[in-house]
Parts: sequence; C-alpha cells; structure tokens
Amino acid sequence: MANRLKDDLVTAGQYGREPQRTVSSYSQLDPDKGVTRPTGTEANKKIRDFCVKSMVAAGLTVKIDRIGNIYGRKEGSKVSDGIVMCGSHLDSVVNGGQFDGALGVFSSIEAVRRLTEEHFENERPIEVVVFTGEEGSAFGFSLLGSAVLAGKIETDDALMQKNINGQKLKDALEAIGYLGDFEKQLNTVDCFIETHVEQGPVLYNENISIGVVENIVGYAWVTVTITGESNHAGTTPMKMRKDALVAAAEIVTAVNRNANDFADTQGSGLVGTIGKLVVFPNGINIVPGKVELCIDIRDGFEKNLLMMRKKICTFMKELESRCGVIVDIQMSPINTPAHLSPDVVQAIEGSTKQFGLSLKRMNSGAGHDAQNMATKVKTGMIFVPSVKGISHAPLEWTTWDDIENGVAVLTQTIKTLSKLDRN
Amino acid sequence: MANRLKDDLVTAGQYGREPQRTVSSYSQLDPDKGVTRPTGTEANKKIRDFCVKSMVAAGLTVKIDRIGNIYGRKEGSKVSDGIVMCGSHLDSVVNGGQFDGALGVFSSIEAVRRLTEEHFENERPIEVVVFTGEEGSAFGFSLLGSAVLAGKIETDDALMQKNINGQKLKDALEAIGYLGDFEKQLNTVDCFIETHVEQGPVLYNENISIGVVENIVGYAWVTVTITGESNHAGTTPMKMRKDALVAAAEIVTAVNRNANDFADTQGSGLVGTIGKLVVFPNGINIVPGKVELCIDIRDGFEKNLLMMRKKICTFMKELESRCGVIVDIQMSPINTPAHLSPDVVQAIEGSTKQFGLSLKRMNSGAGHDAQNMATKVKTGMIFVPSVKGISHAPLEWTTWDDIENGVAVLTQTIKTLSKLDRN
Repeated sequence: MANRLKDDLVTAGQYGREPQRTVSSYSQLDPDKGVTRPTGTEANKKIRDFCVKSMVAAGLTVKIDRIGNIYGRKEGSKVSDGIVMCGSHLDSVVNGGQFDGALGVFSSIEAVRRLTEEHFENERPIEVVVFTGEEGSAFGFSLLGSAVLAGKIETDDALMQKNINGQKLKDALEAIGYLGDFEKQLNTVDCFIETHVEQGPVLYNENISIGVVENIVGYAWVTVTITGESNHAGTTPMKMRKDALVAAAEIVTAVNRNANDFADTQGSGLVGTIGKLVVFPNGINIVPGKVELCIDIRDGFEKNLLMMRKKICTFMKELESRCGVIVDIQMSPINTPAHLSPDVVQAIEGSTKQFGLSLKRMNSGAGHDAQNMATKVKTGMIFVPSVKGISHAPLEWTTWDDIENGVAVLTQTIKTLSKLDRN
Repeated sequence: MANRLKDDLVTAGQYGREPQRTVSSYSQLDPDKGVTRPTGTEANKKIRDFCVKSMVAAGLTVKIDRIGNIYGRKEGSKVSDGIVMCGSHLDSVVNGGQFDGALGVFSSIEAVRRLTEEHFENERPIEVVVFTGEEGSAFGFSLLGSAVLAGKIETDDALMQKNINGQKLKDALEAIGYLGDFEKQLNTVDCFIETHVEQGPVLYNENISIGVVENIVGYAWVTVTITGESNHAGTTPMKMRKDALVAAAEIVTAVNRNANDFADTQGSGLVGTIGKLVVFPNGINIVPGKVELCIDIRDGFEKNLLMMRKKICTFMKELESRCGVIVDIQMSPINTPAHLSPDVVQAIEGSTKQFGLSLKRMNSGAGHDAQNMATKVKTGMIFVPSVKGISHAPLEWTTWDDIENGVAVLTQTIKTLSKLDRN
C-alpha cells in the first residue's frame, strides 16, 4: 500500500466536493456527491495549489505555461533535452470521480519521489505535467492544454474560449493564478506516459491489473434526421404510414448488429452506439413524423471507422424507399484514432511483467491528452481498473491495490525510458 | 352544390380563427392558422350562438341540458318519442380544422331544412344535437356531453372537471350562457346518426364518396419502461452493454411488423403505433440506460386488441434475458370498441346507393360521440373524405362536392329512419 500516494489522492479528492470531505474507501462514496472542479473554479485552484506544493516538496522545479499547463522538472544526469514526461489532468466534469485525471498526476509525483529515495540516476530529465482543461465540459473544447502543446490550436485562440458564464479561459486562468508565461517546446520531449483509470469495465470484469493502451480510439459521428409523415395513430392504416420511428428503430438495430458482428470477427474493439434519439411530435396517438438521432462509431483504426460508417449510411439510404421516409445524413469530420508508440507500449508491458502482474493490451475508448501528445512524441498509457467500469460519476472508484500496481509500473517504466541508451 | 350549407360552414369556420376570417376553399387555408374553440371559450360561445340561431330559423325548438348539450327539435307527425337524432359537436382542438364536428351539426340542420321544404312528413320526431366537449383537450376527458347523456358519467361529476386554467366546466358553461336545465332522457331516442369528416386517408386515397362506419375502434395502451445500464459509449465493449434503446428498437419493430401482418391476414384494420418514446439520459456518447415508450393498439374488436397486446407483451418479456434489461409493463384498461347498428348501417348504405355514390364499409380509427350513443341506441356514422387524410390541423379540408354528398345521404337516411314502420 502506497500510503503517501493514498494520502495525496484522498486530500486531492476533497477539492470540489460539497460539503468538503475526504473519501478513502469505496463505501464512503455518496452517489449524489462527486467532485466538481472545472478549469478556473475555486476547487480547480485548490487542487492545483496542492499539486504545486507536492511537486516542490518532491524536489521538482515548477513552471506554468501560457495555457496554464503545469510542469514539474527533475533534471537529468546526462542531458537537458529528450525529456521523459508523465502526467495527466486535475480538472473534472461536474459531479465526477476523484481519480479521473488526478491519479495520473499524483502517481507521477510519487514516482519521482520513489526515484529520488532510491537515488536512481535518471539520465534524461523527467517532467510531471498537469494539462489544463482536459474535460470539454467547461470551455467547450476538450483536451485543451495538450492540444495547445501539440500545436493543434493556437494558444491565443484557446485563451479566447468562453465558459457558460461568458468568461474567457484567459481570465479564468488569471483569476486562479495559473496564467503563466513559460513557452514549452515539445521538441525537448522524448516520450510521454499517462496513467489513468480505465473508465470502462474491461479490466474490472476480467480481473486484470494493468491495461497497456495501444490505440486511443477515434470516432465518427453521424447526425441523422428521418422525415416521415405525422398522422393520427387511429385513422391511418398500416399500409399508408410513413413512420419515422419505425425507420429509426431499424437504424438502431443495424448499428448494434453491425458493431457486434464486427467486434466478434475483427476483434478491433469497434463500438457503435445511438445514445441520442428524439421523436417528433412524440404524442402517444400520433404516428411519428420525424426522428433525430446521432450515431457514434469508435475504433482504434480509421479504416474501420470509414468502413462501418459507409455500411450504416448505405443501409440508411435504402430505408428511404422501403419505409417511405427521407433520411438526411450529416457526417462530422472523423476524429482520427491515435496510435501509441510500440516502444513505450513495450516498456510498460516489460515493467508490468517484471512485477508479475496480469496485463491486457487494449484500446482506450475515451479521449485523453495522450492522443494529442501521440501526434508529436512517443506516447504510452497505463490503465488501472475502474470498479464496475463507472466513470464521470460520483461512484467512480479504483482500489488502492490497483493504484499501487499502477504507480509501480509507472515508476519502473520511467526508469526504463529515462536511460539514454536502452538497446 | 349546397350553397346554404356552404355558407353556414364558412361562417362557422371563422369562429376561433385568429385573425377572424372566412375560408371557403382549400387554397385559402393557412397552415399556421386553424380554428381554436375549446368548450367555454368566447369562440365556442360564438359558434354555439350561430348554431342556435340557425336551428331556430330552420323551425327547430331549442333546449339546453345540464351539461350544455344543445337539442333542436322538429316534432313528428305520429309520435313524440322514438326520436331520430343526428348531430355532432362544435368544440375544436387548439389550431384544428373547421369541419371537424361542425360538419355534422350544420349538415343535420340543412337536412331538416330540406325535409321542411319538401313537406316531408316525418312520423318520428327529429332532433339535431350538439354535444359539449367532444375533444378531450379542454377538460381532460373526451366525449363529455355524450358520456353524460349515455349515463357513463354523472352530470355533476362532469361539471366539476377543470380546464388548464383551473376553471370548472360548470363555470365555463355558465360564463358562455350554455348551462341549461333540460333533463334529456335517452329512452326517448330511437337512433342516432353522426356525419363526420373521416380524419384519415382511406376514402381520399381510394377516391370513395361515402364511408359507412361499422365499428368505432377501441384501443389498448401499454406504457413500457425499459431499464438497462447507462455507460460510456467509447469504453463499454458491445458484449458488456445493457442498451435500453436497442431493446426499445426491437419493440418498435415488433409492434409494426405484427400490426402489418395482422392487417394483411385478418383485414380487421388493426393498427399498432409507438408514437411516444423518450431516451435517458439521451447523450450522444452515452449508452442509453432507460427508455420510456407507449404502445397504442386499435381495432374494431376487443378480442383482437387482447390478442395483439398479449403477443407484444410476451415478446417484450423475452427481451429481458436477451438484451439484459428489465422491461416494466403497465397496461391501461382496454377502451372497448363500439359496434354500430346493422339497421342504421343498412339505411345509410341504402341511401348512398340510391344516389349512385361509391361507398366503403369501414371502421372509425378516431373516437366519436357516436361510440357513447351506440351503448344505448341504434347508431350509425356517415364519413366524408378528408383531403390527404389530414385532421386536427389547419390544413384539414373536405371538398364541397363531398359535403353535398354527405348531406344528401344524411337527409335520405333520416327520411328512411323517421318512418314508424319501414319493413
């Protein structure tokens, strides 16, 4: 048991919880009271302050960049570039879980402490990073801090993003004291490792300790409007109907069946979901005249996304003549999958085996800062099990044993990757 | 062309239309501006006043009963009981069509005028009736006036019903001057004939002049809650899902398929609809954890309703193990179908043939005051075509030629039925 890391996470977990209190076991969770610390809030300031204090205590030199990302640096013994970076985020969704993000940050600080105590000589510098605005819920754009660092969006554009109160990110960061002036360059970084709770049920259900992420899935979103004809449910014979919901039901079934078939035969972890569906006019005795729905397809490989999207769209157009409806299809640009570095994946796998822990190579179905980092530097992710697969909810939990396994694997992986020559 | 009836209907059609204006052709309809004259409104008073004036001008003696039903009486030459009653209603839904209800009332007045002009000797008395509150939209209970007359509910209970403003029906009737004291007894009535627009597409699509109604369908409503498990659409593998919407889609498909199969093989006109369906939490990237939906099954015979409801409920319970969901089923009491009088049906059919008009025996898929009357007296209904099947909407229309056919058939049917001995 890593008591020091546990203490950090329990302390961090009180910020953004109302009323403020510590939760150190699953049984203490209140299903109504999770943590709420979107970027720029008082709770977000508190957990950042606690993190910076912990970094300094761990001997790290702290810098804040222009988007509010925090970097805590331990110098390398041989080089000042080719940094081994690790970390995650400290912001949360509204009423979320205490480990989502925070686990990766405080595990990284703990890893540094262990290296220092062991007098481990890291040849490369090590940097613990906290990314600003990972959750899209506050400023309408997810993975903000890593997107800026990876050059996907301009810093000034990101700082102009507004939250629901009309406050600019720039002003929100300034208000909590985290609008820095450091200009971090990614070409000084060799690799990045993010430790995170799985946020899904796979490891928990299969009783596996460590998930070694190979791909962070991309997604294809398709917005569909089915237009039929609203009519009286009593006076319109079955043969004269243009029922938009009957057509929509076929789409729901087809997406589910095709995704299941693909998962069975290809094993790529493809998932297809219709999570949002609205019926118009939605009256008990009115044949539905219109249905709006949105299809979410995810996979670790873009070709699978394109193939499945095409298949579903072809099916939907065929419904037009068969159901007498018009199917309008709007395709959002594909959010491309991120392929993590085989080199880092291998290092994480090696560390896991060294401790005799069970592992599974897997995809991440949720988005992470690691996907932005992967576009520029060698990147890997360590997953630990989420109890019952719950995430973005107050009942999110990971056992302390699993957390210790995660930090042990992270520490060993940093050791491996911080050597200049490891072949 | 019945110019006199046309004038009445055009005048009546301006009441409840804002701004008040007359509509005498389909091309003048405004898709946004129908008629709105729920029971007790100023528009409802105006059309009632116009109706009473027309009744008096046609030589009818007018009485108002305790629920606001209006009766206009032409004495019989031989008996004072065994009345031939005809009529419909004058209230409307919000933003409805100008003929729904009004057609049956003013056609009945026109029929009386024609009989008088022809010096036709009606042996039985003839009464034109206007029922209060046919549409359920105002006082939360449809077919109110006929339900009271048929003894389905007590007058005093009906008068206590409140509208959305909290106003009692009693006060609403008093405010417009239609809270009467006449105590109408149904045992004085021999038969009832309601002329009405079809409110469905059958006659219009098949180019038939007169629908002779045999049954007014009953309905079975089933409220269903499907509980699965909300999960992240990205991190939950297909095999680990309990997707409530996937189960709901199977129900929508099953209801539609079974109703179509039944309509094909049994020809009873059964219809099955899911008009209302709501997804929770309804997020694009969340596997739906719950779906609420309502099934509407209609048929002219109760045994068909029961059979179809049982079939669908069995199917739904089987989904529990197959989809990993819980299906909660709430069955409302069956609203029983009304079987109209073969005697009156035959009289209407005979009148139609006499004019060489095309006809179709059919069911009414919508509810009518005739279904309450049918529980106590011999009842029939005459349907005229609704253009494109549209009803309860501003674009509701019936051509003047079809209206003339309807009043001709009604007049002839009254002649037939008003003889004491017609065998």
